[in-house]
Amino acid sequence: MNSSFHPVDRIVFLGHCPDRPGLVKQISQFFAAKGANLTNLQQHTERDRFFIRLEGELEEKSPILPWYGEFAAVAREMDMTYEFHPKRRKTKLALLCSKTLHCPLELISRMLIGDINVEISCMISNHQDAEWIAERFGLPFHYLPVTRERRQYEHLQLDILRQYDYDLIVLARYMRILSGEFIASVTTPIINIHHAFLPSFVGKDPYAQAYQRGVKLIGATSHFVTEDLDEGPIISQNVIPVGHEFSIEELKKIGSDIEKRELAYAILKYSENKIIAWRGRTVVFH
Amino acid sequence: MNSSFHPVDRIVFLGHCPDRPGLVKQISQFFAAKGANLTNLQQHTERDRFFIRLEGELEEKSPILPWYGEFAAVAREMDMTYEFHPKRRKTKLALLCSKTLHCPLELISRMLIGDINVEISCMISNHQDAEWIAERFGLPFHYLPVTRERRQYEHLQLDILRQYDYDLIVLARYMRILSGEFIASVTTPIINIHHAFLPSFVGKDPYAQAYQRGVKLIGATSHFVTEDLDEGPIISQNVIPVGHEFSIEELKKIGSDIEKRELAYAILKYSENKIIAWRGRTVVFH
Amino acid sequence: MNSSFHPVDRIVFLGHCPDRPGLVKQISQFFAAKGANLTNLQQHTERDRFFIRLEGELEEKSPILPWYGEFAAVAREMDMTYEFHPKRRKTKLALLCSKTLHCPLELISRMLIGDINVEISCMISNHQDAEWIAERFGLPFHYLPVTRERRQYEHLQLDILRQYDYDLIVLARYMRILSGEFIASVTTPIINIHHAFLPSFVGKDPYAQAYQRGVKLIGATSHFVTEDLDEGPIISQNVIPVGHEFSIEELKKIGSDIEKRELAYAILKYSENKIIAWRGRTVVFH
Amino acid sequence: MNSSFHPVDRIVFLGHCPDRPGLVKQISQFFAAKGANLTNLQQHTERDRFFIRLEGELEEKSPILPWYGEFAAVAREMDMTYEFHPKRRKTKLALLCSKTLHCPLELISRMLIGDINVEISCMISNHQDAEWIAERFGLPFHYLPVTRERRQYEHLQLDILRQYDYDLIVLARYMRILSGEFIASVTTPIINIHHAFLPSFVGKDPYAQAYQRGVKLIGATSHFVTEDLDEGPIISQNVIPVGHEFSIEELKKIGSDIEKRELAYAILKYSENKIIAWRGRTVVFH
Repeated sequence: MNSSFHPVDRIVFLGHCPDRPGLVKQISQFFAAKGANLTNLQQHTERDRFFIRLEGELEEKSPILPWYGEFAAVAREMDMTYEFHPKRRKTKLALLCSKTLHCPLELISRMLIGDINVEISCMISNHQDAEWIAERFGLPFHYLPVTRERRQYEHLQLDILRQYDYDLIVLARYMRILSGEFIASVTTPIINIHHAFLPSFVGKDPYAQAYQRGVKLIGATSHFVTEDLDEGPIISQNVIPVGHEFSIEELKKIGSDIEKRELAYAILKYSENKIIAWRGRTVVFH
Repeated sequence: MNSSFHPVDRIVFLGHCPDRPGLVKQISQFFAAKGANLTNLQQHTERDRFFIRLEGELEEKSPILPWYGEFAAVAREMDMTYEFHPKRRKTKLALLCSKTLHCPLELISRMLIGDINVEISCMISNHQDAEWIAERFGLPFHYLPVTRERRQYEHLQLDILRQYDYDLIVLARYMRILSGEFIASVTTPIINIHHAFLPSFVGKDPYAQAYQRGVKLIGATSHFVTEDLDEGPIISQNVIPVGHEFSIEELKKIGSDIEKRELAYAILKYSENKIIAWRGRTVVFH
Repeated sequence: MNSSFHPVDRIVFLGHCPDRPGLVKQISQFFAAKGANLTNLQQHTERDRFFIRLEGELEEKSPILPWYGEFAAVAREMDMTYEFHPKRRKTKLALLCSKTLHCPLELISRMLIGDINVEISCMISNHQDAEWIAERFGLPFHYLPVTRERRQYEHLQLDILRQYDYDLIVLARYMRILSGEFIASVTTPIINIHHAFLPSFVGKDPYAQAYQRGVKLIGATSHFVTEDLDEGPIISQNVIPVGHEFSIEELKKIGSDIEKRELAYAILKYSENKIIAWRGRTVVFH
Repeated sequence: MNSSFHPVDRIVFLGHCPDRPGLVKQISQFFAAKGANLTNLQQHTERDRFFIRLEGELEEKSPILPWYGEFAAVAREMDMTYEFHPKRRKTKLALLCSKTLHCPLELISRMLIGDINVEISCMISNHQDAEWIAERFGLPFHYLPVTRERRQYEHLQLDILRQYDYDLIVLARYMRILSGEFIASVTTPIINIHHAFLPSFVGKDPYAQAYQRGVKLIGATSHFVTEDLDEGPIISQNVIPVGHEFSIEELKKIGSDIEKRELAYAILKYSENKIIAWRGRTVVFH
């Protein structure tokens, strides 16, 4: 990423490795030697795995790239997976969407007012409904009508994606299932918003299912996409109380409030380098 | 019920029937003719069914019983299922519990300070853990160790229940499944608290399931018990946010806060005659 | 309103008057005589005042206007304040805004996707920040730079408002105080969103106040505007948990999520004719 | 404290000092040298102050006391305020209460089932209402009827307190104001539960105030007690949605659910050594 060459004065470090004594000492020694003042450190251990995130202020500006080389020896010895980032990086999003517009509109609104530090590289949709929004805000839009053959369709999607620079694919109420092959082909994570409180109501028409079951809370779940549909690691969830008065249509409407908020929240946390997914769960730092 | 003979000056009416025009008019005419001033009326229609609850103040005290007779003709014509109750009735509970004590303790505490208008007729348990509590508060306690044969075990339970006067059976974290035969044998509703946000995590060890799935909210669900395990009409649900830091043990603890509150809430709503269960859902009046 | 002449088949009635026995009977008789099937009725009594809202389905379409005349005699006798509306009416909004854009963007987004049934008649602002948004969506925008004299400034605002047809004035994070004279001059209600959990943190910089006080929940409050600043009847409130990690800047950001949602919610409830304000409080029907 | 002499294998460290680079390194070096494996570390910096909490597993059991001596030199150099604790310590509570019983009952219930790791050393009340509860659970109870003179009354309270070993004074809906002199005389912190969402509704009858103001959420706040009434650092807050239907009496009831939960939560966090109060705010570690 180009951003690695820009000198920054606030740095974020994110890493995880097998647990053992002395890890915090080694890592903090590394940062102290570099003259970084740690302003926030969170460390968590679960199932014999050590997770850490820290933020540091540098005495003088430095590009990110050299840090990788200098930390490599320490990391190798720890068997650690790790990343360095500038404190506030702009995350580039590739949006996949369908007919429903509240999620794309929310992300665009938040981008415009700087509420999340993102840039929308492109929008790809199997419907034309969002096209006018993209046009109005000058965002590249690709309408890709569904073809019978999924593999071929996904190849077309990948061809479009390849034209853009992006850090994250966002399924903004995109209503088609992605194949394992597609997921393996892209090099970035994929975040989805599921319109139910997972693991309740997987699959089709979750609001109709919720109505039938008579639940008293309606929810939404943001999660990383994996091959197993609706089974990827959960990033955030929220609910709103509902009563018997709510029709399916009203459940959908009130649910859309949570969907758009939780999707934006997941992207915020991702862009702040606060999420580590590991073995089906996520660590979401505060 | 004896309470039907005591004159009261505030009355609650609860009913449901097939929808058609003019029902509110007919019902309110009936109450106006009786000189009752309506202080709260809620009416809801769904799936061609008319639901109503109203509270009225009477000019002079009257026992409940005669109202049934006087309303019978109107009700027959409407094909209505209905109940009359005094405004604040004391609900008599038969508690079934097991080893976990936070729910029984909560209900006893609320009973003691008048927070819910109930009386605990008896406690029956397959474990002795709750016995000392029952003793301390002078409540009849029956320890019924589990026998191999469910039918026989349930007959013993029914024998005990028959000795008491109760309006509602409460499963206060009772950990055994009741047979359809048992449910059919008792003449009152049964309310259960499920330690998960239904329909998520039905069955065993919901907190361990929740940990594995990495959910970010922990919930509990109060519901009427039907033959289909964990499928009865939901009365109330609530959740508490949790993070990756929470162990299974901590999920259980924090979950118990919701369990006891939602169970108490369901009993409160039931004792206020605010719940109608119909075709797998509940109407819970405000 | 023109809408009074369009025949509709679903009608909403909203009224309040001094309490006395027989009111529901009289009102439901009126609707029964008109052949309306009531699908939802909510009645509430507090402080000797009777509040009612009902929805009815008509056998054949009818305009709203004649209902007023026909109900007048009943209403006079009850000393009732009342309104008839078509079930889903489109509410026309006049937006007042300043520099902050999340609220106007939210209302426009919800209008575009039909999430709230409104039309934005005009936007008036003391800053130019929102102008590009108005342009992009083809909404009339009036930039009115602040003049030294409030009375004169408000006259200019009233002049602009007079050019438009609107049912409700919405202060979408408009940062100037309206005089009692202004409020008396407009003929519609005014709804404001206060960026704090009222009555906490009235006045300036509520997020800085909240940070200093170290609160653990951040909130917002939608309310009707009255002469007493921040004292108008509350329509809705909500909160989000925050921790010590949140800077004032982050409190503002997360608070803006609640502000935009609660403002939209208040407008939704208003457009559904579900709010009655009376003596400093509101009845918000379900 | 006696607990300082018992060897433990899990240790908690809590500290704060002026911020500067290298603090985490120094602290983690100290723990690494002692052979402690850190399992959770949270560090936060605000307003030029460095806050840290960590948990470590020791290779072999050790009493807490010697750690103080060994860390003293490091701490002096950092100008740090700090504490060492065993991972799960039993916190001894002195309860002050009045007529309302839901808070004392909640704390006793949670103590009995091990939900919070506390012991109630004594109960002191200006009313006799709680006496039977104390008796039933074998807890020392002191009824201290209010005398005209506050100073004299508080001296009697202090005399009683001096007979007991306690780590924390808990005002469990104790309805009298403590003087600055009293607060200075006791050597432990004091935690109170305020029955409103502070800073709203300070002073008398918060539920009546809330009803008048027509708020749509009811809350409670746990906080440390300082000389300034209702102004101490907030530990936790929560709310429950309410509607216009709720009478003052019902607001009190539903509010008591939050009061008892938040008070228990504050005690839990305190007993886990997760709270640092500093300059009017608290850091509450996760």
